[in-house]
Amino acid sequence: MFKKILIIGCGMIGSSILRGAISQKLCKKIYVFEKNIKYQKQIKKINKKIILIKKIDKKIENMDLVIISTPMSEYKKIIIKLNKNLSNNSLITDVGSTRVNVSKLIKKKLSKKLNWIMSHPISGSEASGPKYGSKNLFKNKWCILIKSKKNKLLESKLSRFWKKLGSKVIFMKEQEHDKIFSVTSHLPHLIAYNLIKTTQDFQKINKKNVIKYSAGGLRDFSRIAASNEIMWRDVFFNNSKNMSKIIDLFIKNLKNFKIDINKKRNSLLLDKLKKSKKVRHQILLLKQDISKPDFGREN
Amino acid sequence: MFKKILIIGCGMIGSSILRGAISQKLCKKIYVFEKNIKYQKQIKKINKKIILIKKIDKKIENMDLVIISTPMSEYKKIIIKLNKNLSNNSLITDVGSTRVNVSKLIKKKLSKKLNWIMSHPISGSEASGPKYGSKNLFKNKWCILIKSKKNKLLESKLSRFWKKLGSKVIFMKEQEHDKIFSVTSHLPHLIAYNLIKTTQDFQKINKKNVIKYSAGGLRDFSRIAASNEIMWRDVFFNNSKNMSKIIDLFIKNLKNFKIDINKKRNSLLLDKLKKSKKVRHQILLLKQDISKPDFGREN
Repeated sequence: MFKKILIIGCGMIGSSILRGAISQKLCKKIYVFEKNIKYQKQIKKINKKIILIKKIDKKIENMDLVIISTPMSEYKKIIIKLNKNLSNNSLITDVGSTRVNVSKLIKKKLSKKLNWIMSHPISGSEASGPKYGSKNLFKNKWCILIKSKKNKLLESKLSRFWKKLGSKVIFMKEQEHDKIFSVTSHLPHLIAYNLIKTTQDFQKINKKNVIKYSAGGLRDFSRIAASNEIMWRDVFFNNSKNMSKIIDLFIKNLKNFKIDINKKRNSLLLDKLKKSKKVRHQILLLKQDISKPDFGREN
Repeated sequence: MFKKILIIGCGMIGSSILRGAISQKLCKKIYVFEKNIKYQKQIKKINKKIILIKKIDKKIENMDLVIISTPMSEYKKIIIKLNKNLSNNSLITDVGSTRVNVSKLIKKKLSKKLNWIMSHPISGSEASGPKYGSKNLFKNKWCILIKSKKNKLLESKLSRFWKKLGSKVIFMKEQEHDKIFSVTSHLPHLIAYNLIKTTQDFQKINKKNVIKYSAGGLRDFSRIAASNEIMWRDVFFNNSKNMSKIIDLFIKNLKNFKIDINKKRNSLLLDKLKKSKKVRHQILLLKQDISKPDFGREN
């Protein structure tokens, strides 16, 4: 499919693309640029064919596909090197979780001769690093590609690449993407972080250790709140306008709920609780989760 | 251990006690009172020894242990029947998720001759009904018993009962219990319900179906928000004072977080995100969850 692929930044997501591309034979040669020395050692063990490069310089000129899977705050530095070294025929993509900011950055900083089509594979976990990657990470998961006016051929080539990795591909505009994922992904993460913060505050105020009783619900949130902090700082900063709106809507609901329970508004509260089950039902129908009850994971 | 046990209300939790008591041979005879006809059929299939009773009347007189595992809003009606029919030697317990309200109810309504020691096993899931019960539900999970001045002998007997079911037993005062679980259990559930409500509101306002992209985080919350609505209405109503305080603390954190991301307070935000990981680390050390990353459950 491609002659040469270069992966810049090879943590959990990058190494999953690496594993998938090798397993599906999507390229003849595969190159990796990764700064973290511990990660480099783990990457070498994945497959002997992987070529680790130490600099982004003229060597990268003839890469057919460049995949950036670093935190988004690294992109500026990387673009300077791509502008300097990459040939016009290359296709660039990335896997960032917000798209309007990167779209602006590309327009402003990327050489007009180069082609960058943004991707966002909806998969991951709280784990970081190449040892947690898997060739099956993208299987049956959505991958959002951002519509590009420039090059329909490259667009369909990139789409085929993700499909070969197992993704269900869908095209969106960057604004639409950032709005949707402010609700389905960024808000849940923001809430998880703030719930943990609230628990810590409670412990301080009340001088009580409550963490040991976390199996009743807190446990699941703590997992989400253990996600990579650099990645999530970038997401929250870059999607701050959508986040502000959805935080306000969420706070409004919390305040109403507080009134409901204090005024013991029985039928109103029951109605709210029942409606949540309908969403769960939709999520199961859409195969975004399984119906098997979760009693907590066993050691 | 007991001659006769009666379980009143036999859903997921009740039927797990039932299964555990039979499997551990904790009684000679076991009786069940369950109003739901569908549930009655499922209970009969669990074991031939189970005796289903149709009324709470004089038949229950000589029960050694009565376990109430109905929603807490049913307790008032049940107490009237216990006062009328139960002998003074019986031990009563229940499995409700809030304790101050039940403690008040007992003082006000229960016959002074009867003995009720409250239990709260910290285990469960979003599933309801006896078919989801398991004899191992309580294994290595906390069971909180509320200190009783009245009868130390019965207290230690009840403690042994839960330990035989696999629980780690700990004694608390009812006020302490309700405060701790307002943070570790009730707030996570309240948040999950309100996140789902916010998603529904967002869908209406923006005329967009976003549920199909819920694998990025929303999925896990939707599971929690699918829990039994009667049980959770009772919890929120009965623990409303603690809930109000913790909701306020949570909203304060959300508002600060919103300012952090809008003002791009870099080091402050990174510091907050990093601190969450420490709590996760504690939870793993305390064996409240396992460290294996969660990539979403497979069909």
